[in-house]
Amino acid sequence: MIIVADNLRITRPIIAQAVERLDPAPIRDMALRCKNAGADAIDINSGPLSRRPAERMTFLVETVQAAVDLPLVLDTTNPEAMAAGLAASRRRVVLNGVSLEADKLAHILPLAQKADCDLIAYLLRPDGHVPPDAAGRMEAAVALFGECQAAGIDPGRLIFDPIVAPLAWQEGNRQNMAVLEVIRTLPDLLGFPVKTIAGLSNLTTGAPDNDLRRRYQSAFLPMLAAAGTSMLLMNVLDPAVLGIAKACRRICGSAIFTWQ
Amino acid sequence: MIIVADNLRITRPIIAQAVERLDPAPIRDMALRCKNAGADAIDINSGPLSRRPAERMTFLVETVQAAVDLPLVLDTTNPEAMAAGLAASRRRVVLNGVSLEADKLAHILPLAQKADCDLIAYLLRPDGHVPPDAAGRMEAAVALFGECQAAGIDPGRLIFDPIVAPLAWQEGNRQNMAVLEVIRTLPDLLGFPVKTIAGLSNLTTGAPDNDLRRRYQSAFLPMLAAAGTSMLLMNVLDPAVLGIAKACRRICGSAIFTWQ
Repeated sequence: MIIVADNLRITRPIIAQAVERLDPAPIRDMALRCKNAGADAIDINSGPLSRRPAERMTFLVETVQAAVDLPLVLDTTNPEAMAAGLAASRRRVVLNGVSLEADKLAHILPLAQKADCDLIAYLLRPDGHVPPDAAGRMEAAVALFGECQAAGIDPGRLIFDPIVAPLAWQEGNRQNMAVLEVIRTLPDLLGFPVKTIAGLSNLTTGAPDNDLRRRYQSAFLPMLAAAGTSMLLMNVLDPAVLGIAKACRRICGSAIFTWQ
Repeated sequence: MIIVADNLRITRPIIAQAVERLDPAPIRDMALRCKNAGADAIDINSGPLSRRPAERMTFLVETVQAAVDLPLVLDTTNPEAMAAGLAASRRRVVLNGVSLEADKLAHILPLAQKADCDLIAYLLRPDGHVPPDAAGRMEAAVALFGECQAAGIDPGRLIFDPIVAPLAWQEGNRQNMAVLEVIRTLPDLLGFPVKTIAGLSNLTTGAPDNDLRRRYQSAFLPMLAAAGTSMLLMNVLDPAVLGIAKACRRICGSAIFTWQ
């Protein structure tokens, strides 16, 4: 299970301000903190970047890759920002991501095909809504698998995101049981050992305090790991939750176990 | 998921001494602490009780049921102690337990059949050893299911224990992945919604410190919960691990989720 830091996100005021001013210091600092904490990769969540998307994503990618040698995940809904980030990357990146929404298919698939890079595919309905159950997610996976193959994308490049639901949503707990089922079932359903990613922070949206956030993330993370999740997008700066993630890797992995 | 306290065990010197002297205070104190922590049931792990088994198990059962109104699990390898505990119980109890070992089948099955009480069945080989993989555990389950039906025991009374392996064992991590598979698969394999129990403390036998013990228990517990474990035998006096257990119940349960 690859641990991807979700900490570099434009919704943090200090990051938003750094992007606005093209000030590399706070970006570099966050990238280094994530690497030092033990992240295997860093998600650059730039948001839509409605103004100067290419310049800003280029700045983000160049700043992060100058600071750390980790793989990058380009997390934006703006195709222009995505293309610029891809062009600025010196190493292979993961595009985050595509879905069955028509504009995503039209703009993101060609970028991924041309770059031959990994691509996160969200198991959303074509209208962009989260399916209410496992069946809806499976249906989206089958359709996306077909779209990607039709676009000439190697299925080995696909990383499906079954959309972790906030527990506070109506039937959020039942939805997250469906997420586990989807992660376990997808390789059989598609007849291909497709990869998966899960965004842990979504789970605790609206949590009243950090203790509860930590407890519920710690409780759901091992369920994701045991279901076979390939990549986990998470806050790597909470040592308790990161410790659980690392323990899960040692429990679920094939290496000889050692206490650490 | 029912939480059973494993804290009342003869391997603790204070409990061993209390049993030796028939002194109820330390037993009562431990039972109350478990109940106050949130245990749903208490395992009375008396060990083999090679001397005066009937008198001592009777003392244990009477002391605990005078202190708390929780269901009791009678955890002994001594059939005489088991029979005495059963006779002293005012409420239904769980017998812990039977296995394919010939003397267990001969002595424990008739007790369980006569009392019509729940019975924990260990998925061990007939020689008492832990099977090395999922297949060996499944084989034991099928054989035990047959033995119990032949003895006239209602299959709804059976609670299978797939034997959590210490992580420090050779291939302990792989064995525990097999444990999860067994818990998930047993109802389909047997064509019956059979119950399961897992002993969490076994996982961390030999852990070098409490932080590591807590971290690995916290990481494996949710995997057991998501696999569908009916009962969890655990140290209920570690608030962090118990908090994870309660969070797992709210994530995996069907009740409307609330933050707590």
